[in-house]
Amino acid sequence: MTTTAAPQEVKYIGKPGEVSFAKGLEGVIVAESVKSYVDGIAGRLIYHGIPIEVLAEKSTFEETAFLLLYDKLPTEDELDVYKMRLRQYREIPDEVYDFISRAGRRYNFHPMSVLRTAISMLAAFDDSAEEDTMIAHEREAIKLTSRIATVVAAIGRARKGLPPVHPRPDLSHAANFLYMLFGEEPDPFYARVMDVILILHADHECNASTFTVRAITSTLSDMYSAVVGGIAALKGPLHGGANEEVMHMLHEIGEVENAEAWVLRALARKKKIPGFGHRVYKTYDPRAHILKQYALEVTRRAGTEKWLRMAEVIERVMIERLGQKGIQPNVDFYSGIVMASMGIETALFTPIFAVGRIAGWVAHALEQRKDNRIYRPRFFYVGPEHMEYIPIEERG
Amino acid sequence: MTTTAAPQEVKYIGKPGEVSFAKGLEGVIVAESVKSYVDGIAGRLIYHGIPIEVLAEKSTFEETAFLLLYDKLPTEDELDVYKMRLRQYREIPDEVYDFISRAGRRYNFHPMSVLRTAISMLAAFDDSAEEDTMIAHEREAIKLTSRIATVVAAIGRARKGLPPVHPRPDLSHAANFLYMLFGEEPDPFYARVMDVILILHADHECNASTFTVRAITSTLSDMYSAVVGGIAALKGPLHGGANEEVMHMLHEIGEVENAEAWVLRALARKKKIPGFGHRVYKTYDPRAHILKQYALEVTRRAGTEKWLRMAEVIERVMIERLGQKGIQPNVDFYSGIVMASMGIETALFTPIFAVGRIAGWVAHALEQRKDNRIYRPRFFYVGPEHMEYIPIEERG
Repeated sequence: MTTTAAPQEVKYIGKPGEVSFAKGLEGVIVAESVKSYVDGIAGRLIYHGIPIEVLAEKSTFEETAFLLLYDKLPTEDELDVYKMRLRQYREIPDEVYDFISRAGRRYNFHPMSVLRTAISMLAAFDDSAEEDTMIAHEREAIKLTSRIATVVAAIGRARKGLPPVHPRPDLSHAANFLYMLFGEEPDPFYARVMDVILILHADHECNASTFTVRAITSTLSDMYSAVVGGIAALKGPLHGGANEEVMHMLHEIGEVENAEAWVLRALARKKKIPGFGHRVYKTYDPRAHILKQYALEVTRRAGTEKWLRMAEVIERVMIERLGQKGIQPNVDFYSGIVMASMGIETALFTPIFAVGRIAGWVAHALEQRKDNRIYRPRFFYVGPEHMEYIPIEERG
Repeated sequence: MTTTAAPQEVKYIGKPGEVSFAKGLEGVIVAESVKSYVDGIAGRLIYHGIPIEVLAEKSTFEETAFLLLYDKLPTEDELDVYKMRLRQYREIPDEVYDFISRAGRRYNFHPMSVLRTAISMLAAFDDSAEEDTMIAHEREAIKLTSRIATVVAAIGRARKGLPPVHPRPDLSHAANFLYMLFGEEPDPFYARVMDVILILHADHECNASTFTVRAITSTLSDMYSAVVGGIAALKGPLHGGANEEVMHMLHEIGEVENAEAWVLRALARKKKIPGFGHRVYKTYDPRAHILKQYALEVTRRAGTEKWLRMAEVIERVMIERLGQKGIQPNVDFYSGIVMASMGIETALFTPIFAVGRIAGWVAHALEQRKDNRIYRPRFFYVGPEHMEYIPIEERG
C-alpha cells in the first residue's frame, strides 16, 4: 500500500518542512493501468505484456498503437481497418497549413510551440471535436494519432521555407511521415528506422506528459485538450527536450578525441550529461540498446560514424564513473544520433517524439475516462495564516 | 506525514485492487505553497493569509493578482507599475484576432477550444516567449494575465459576428474587459461586480487546472505551455464547465414554482445537481456567500430576480436534504446568475473563469520553478506480465 486517501483530520497548513511528501510525486501511485510497465531495476519495458525488444523487431507503429489503444494485438482484419482509419485522417485543413507557413516565415519560432497551437487549432476547425461519447473519443484518438505526423512534417518544411507536402495514402505511417518531411519516398530501411523510433517512444508508463494528459482528461475535457497538454509538457527540457541536448553536446565536443576530456571536465563541474539517468531506470534503458544497434547501420550509411564513436566514449566514461549509481544511457542518448544521421534537424527531435508518444497519450486518455475521478490533490500551505489588509497608503 | 517517496522495493505491478491508492490524488500533498489555503471544514479561503471576504470588499483584481504573484500587498508605487505593465500588454497581434474571427464565422465552435488555441498562438508570434530567465517568466506571466482578457472579449464578440473592440489603456482590468466585450464603457457598479468575480476566481489552491499548470511547468516548459494546459483542464465539465451547467438547469426549470419539484425529482433519480458539493469544502463555499450578496443587487437592476428566487429554492431543498452530508453551494452556483444578469452569454462563463484563474496559474508556475522537481509519479500496472507476440496470421 503506497498512498491512501487522507482522512479529514490531516492538516494541510503549517510550517515549511513540517510534513514530508514525495517531491515530484516520486513513487506515488496515481491510477491502475494496463498500458505499459517499466521495471527500472531489470531494465525492462513492456507494452501490455510484450517486451519492447519484440515490438521493435516484429511490430509496426500502427500495430503498436492499436495494442496500446485496445489492449490486444489486432487480427489482420482489425489492423486493416485501423490502418485505413489512420490513412483517411491524414489530411489537415488549409487553415492549419496556413498557420504553420506563417509561423515558418518568422525568424525564431519554436517548433513545439507551433505544434501545440496547430493541434489545438485542429479542434477549433473540427465540428465533431466536442462530441462526448466513447466512440467519438476513440475516433478523435485515431484522428490525432494520424494528423500529428502531418503537422510535424509541415513544421519541418516551414522551418526551411518550403511548402507542405500533402500526405500519401499508400504509404505506412512512418514512411508517409518521411515522405511529407523530405518530399520524396523514403528508402525502406530509413522508413523502418522511423517506424522503430515511433514504436520505442509510443508509451512509457506515467511520464510527465502522459500524466498531464490524464490530469486534463480527469476533468472530462476533450481529447484535443488532453493532447495539447501532453505537447505542452513534452516541450520542457527535462522531458522531451533532452534528446536535442545530446546533439548539442556532440556538436560542442566536435571530435572523438575530445570526448573523454570533455565529459571528465563536465563531471568535475557537476554538470548534468544529457541522455543519462532516469527517474525509474537504474540500469541501461532497453530502448537505448535498440537504438544503439540501429545507430551502427544508420551512421555507416550516412557516413556519420564519428557521432557514434563519440557517444561510445561518453557512454564508457559515464558508466565507469556513475554506472554503479544507476546513471546509465537513456532513450535520448542514441535517438538523436540516429535521427540526425537521417538528415533530420535537431529542432524536430522533440516534435517527432510527440508523433510516437501520442499513441500512449490517447490510449491513457481513454483508459482514464473508463474509471475517472478528477485529479485534485492538495498543497501544503506554508504562507501566513493571517495577514492584515493594511490600506495601501499605509503600506511600507 | 501524508505520503513519502516510495522505497525501491515497492512494487508497481500486480492485480487490480491489490494496492490501495488515493484515486484522483485525493488528500495527496504535491508541493508546499504560499499562495492560497482552503479550510474545507470552516468554509474559509485565504490568499496569502488574507480572507477572500476582505479581498472581495477592499481589493481589486490587479492588487489581488499582484498579491498572488509576489506574496505581498503592493505599495502604491508597486501597484502603479504593475497596473501599467498590465495595460501595456493588452493589445494582441492581428494574427490572433484574425483566427478568432475566422473561428467565429463557423457554426459550432467551442469558446474554450478557441481560447486554448489563441493563447497558444500568442507564443508562436512572440519572439520573447522562449526566454528562459526568471525575469522573462515573470514578464510573460503579466503579459498573459493581461492578454487573456482581450482574447476572451474578442471570442465573445466573434460569437455574435461582431468585430473585436480594441483595449483601452485608461480603464481598470475588469472595466476594460467589459468595454471590449460590449463595446461601451461599463456602468461602474457592473465593472466592480466583474472585478469581484475575477478576485473570487483568481486562485483556489491545488485545483485540477492549477495542478496541470504545475505539472507542465515541472518539465521546465514555458509559461504559455503551462497556461494552455490550465485552459485545457479548466475546459472540462467537472472543473470550469460547472457554472454553465447551473444556468442550463435554471433555463430547464423555467419558473420558480417548478424548482422544488424539479430538484426532488432529480435527487430521486440520483442526478448530480450542478453548483453543489466540492472535493475540499464540506460546508458553504465562502465565494458563493459573496456572489449571493451581489446577485441580490445585480438581479434587481437587471430584472432577473426570478433566477435568484429559483436558486434560493434549490439551495433550501438541497441543504435540507444533503447539507448534513457536506453537499452545499459552491462558487459556480451564483456566479452564473450574476454574469447572465449582466448580459453575458452562458458559453463565456468558463472563459471568464480563466480570465480570473490565470492570476493563480502564473503565480503557481513561478512558485513551481523556484523549487522544481519533475512530476513523474507511477501507475500500478495491472495488465498481463507476459504476452506472446503471436504472428498476425495466427491470431484468433
